[in-house]
Amino acid sequence: MATAQFGSETSQRGEWVRQANRFTDRIGSAEWPVEAGRYRLVVSLACPWAHRAVIVRRLLGLEDAISLGVVDPIRDDKGWRFTLDEGDRDPVLGIGFLSEAYLATDPGFAGRFTVPSIVDVPSGKVVTNDYPQITIDFSLRWKAFHREGAPNLYPETLREEIDAINAEVYRDVNNGVYRCGFATSQQAYDKAYDALFARLDALSARLSDQRYLVGDTITEADIRLFTTLVRFDAVYHGHFKTNRHKLTEMPVLWAYARDLFTTPGFGETVDFDHIKRHYYATHHQLNPSLIVPKGPDLGAWYEPHGREALGGSPFGPGTPPR
Amino acid sequence: MATAQFGSETSQRGEWVRQANRFTDRIGSAEWPVEAGRYRLVVSLACPWAHRAVIVRRLLGLEDAISLGVVDPIRDDKGWRFTLDEGDRDPVLGIGFLSEAYLATDPGFAGRFTVPSIVDVPSGKVVTNDYPQITIDFSLRWKAFHREGAPNLYPETLREEIDAINAEVYRDVNNGVYRCGFATSQQAYDKAYDALFARLDALSARLSDQRYLVGDTITEADIRLFTTLVRFDAVYHGHFKTNRHKLTEMPVLWAYARDLFTTPGFGETVDFDHIKRHYYATHHQLNPSLIVPKGPDLGAWYEPHGREALGGSPFGPGTPPR
Repeated sequence: MATAQFGSETSQRGEWVRQANRFTDRIGSAEWPVEAGRYRLVVSLACPWAHRAVIVRRLLGLEDAISLGVVDPIRDDKGWRFTLDEGDRDPVLGIGFLSEAYLATDPGFAGRFTVPSIVDVPSGKVVTNDYPQITIDFSLRWKAFHREGAPNLYPETLREEIDAINAEVYRDVNNGVYRCGFATSQQAYDKAYDALFARLDALSARLSDQRYLVGDTITEADIRLFTTLVRFDAVYHGHFKTNRHKLTEMPVLWAYARDLFTTPGFGETVDFDHIKRHYYATHHQLNPSLIVPKGPDLGAWYEPHGREALGGSPFGPGTPPR
Repeated sequence: MATAQFGSETSQRGEWVRQANRFTDRIGSAEWPVEAGRYRLVVSLACPWAHRAVIVRRLLGLEDAISLGVVDPIRDDKGWRFTLDEGDRDPVLGIGFLSEAYLATDPGFAGRFTVPSIVDVPSGKVVTNDYPQITIDFSLRWKAFHREGAPNLYPETLREEIDAINAEVYRDVNNGVYRCGFATSQQAYDKAYDALFARLDALSARLSDQRYLVGDTITEADIRLFTTLVRFDAVYHGHFKTNRHKLTEMPVLWAYARDLFTTPGFGETVDFDHIKRHYYATHHQLNPSLIVPKGPDLGAWYEPHGREALGGSPFGPGTPPR
């Protein structure tokens, strides 16, 4: 997630340009074998990139194989902290700040410390913070540890289509909301806003007669869109000025998001408190008072969505997570 | 309207406390006789307090009797400016800044320069910036210049009820949105937010079976509520964090607001461009980037509201303004 270290990720035209992911090793190699209990997934429940990994881990039943560390939603100059844990330290890694793992891996690291990160517990080193690869590897390389009935979130025959839609959703939606919020010129903001809502309109059209983005079951593509949609009204609409409409005013996407929200593996991984406190109380440059809005009212997330009528089945031949 | 001069209007508990109106003379006295062409009403089209006076002036047909000066929606350290006029000067008053009239009236004035202000053209002095009295006096003291068919916006028999509801609406809604937005503590914000939405819920209940707030025609009470509602989604919801629901999500108030919006005298006085640019580009302390959101989509203001079914008639025995 983006931090207050703003300058280095802003272009001369006021555009937000996200830093590259620093650690891109992949588990499932000689150096980093797939091994239950060896790795710790560090996340913020506020962060949409980390949220993907939390959902996929749960849908695939990897909870026992890969443990989870959760950081404080409010990040200060020192980055993400383990202040939710006893003694303000992660009980498995024994560190107080995520930065400690980064600097143990690369003492010269000078970028943002980001979640999700997967840390090798024995060495305390960061294996990867490459979020787009993390969830794919959960699907492809951790198969031996998937639960019985785990869904196929990245089926081989659909990969090309999933990759293509993921690229558009990343550019215009997942990262697009940040490009709106972190723009420092009106022109850069306007451009990002137009691209975001054009894409949301296209996604609405696509989803008006099919239940999921690709094929007739939940795939990686749905998970990536969901983590942005679920944050839309709570933070992006106001804090990032993505305010043509609320999600609640875009009927197809709103029903689609509610459908996923009430599907096992999704809603229970959403922490609106962490989401709101993180964004509003971390970005001084956008919200100097650090006051966290009381809204929006969230009751409508549980209203009937009616999407079953479109057919499809969330997990195909698989089963929901327990 | 509130300015960047924040400190002097903030309590120790972080509550926004609006300054008192400095000039409270009333036209219709020996010193300030009611006289067509003598006074100039200075407004910002962004400002809800000034907007009241613009609407009442138009409903009563006082356009020829009281001229109108409009300031630039973006206010800087020097206050409201006449940069929309040729040569950056008000063509009638001959001044470039509203502050010039204030200081000509009270050289020691050290508060905010506010709109609406009524300026005596011959002397260049401010007669009043006492916005709650200005509209009442338009109704009561300028009767000789009302147009034929002008509505009675402050009927004697309903005054007590109008005054009572105006007091609640002022505290919790008109000024309540500012108390949300300008709070500098979470506690002060939370308190203002709760009061605002409790009042909006009560107003929704009241308006669910009657077309207007008091009696069965438009009164001063409706005008005062309208000027806040029409700004709600465009600025208050995001910029002031009044985000339990958008106006578009509060069905009774949304239909009520659309009913007034499409009544002659209302919609044509609303300038969403001025409204958005003023709030977002003036309050550095809330929006340091000064970027103005492109949203919300405003198309729905013209959708049928269905409120005619509740009876009532906007102008009673009077007629709409031309």
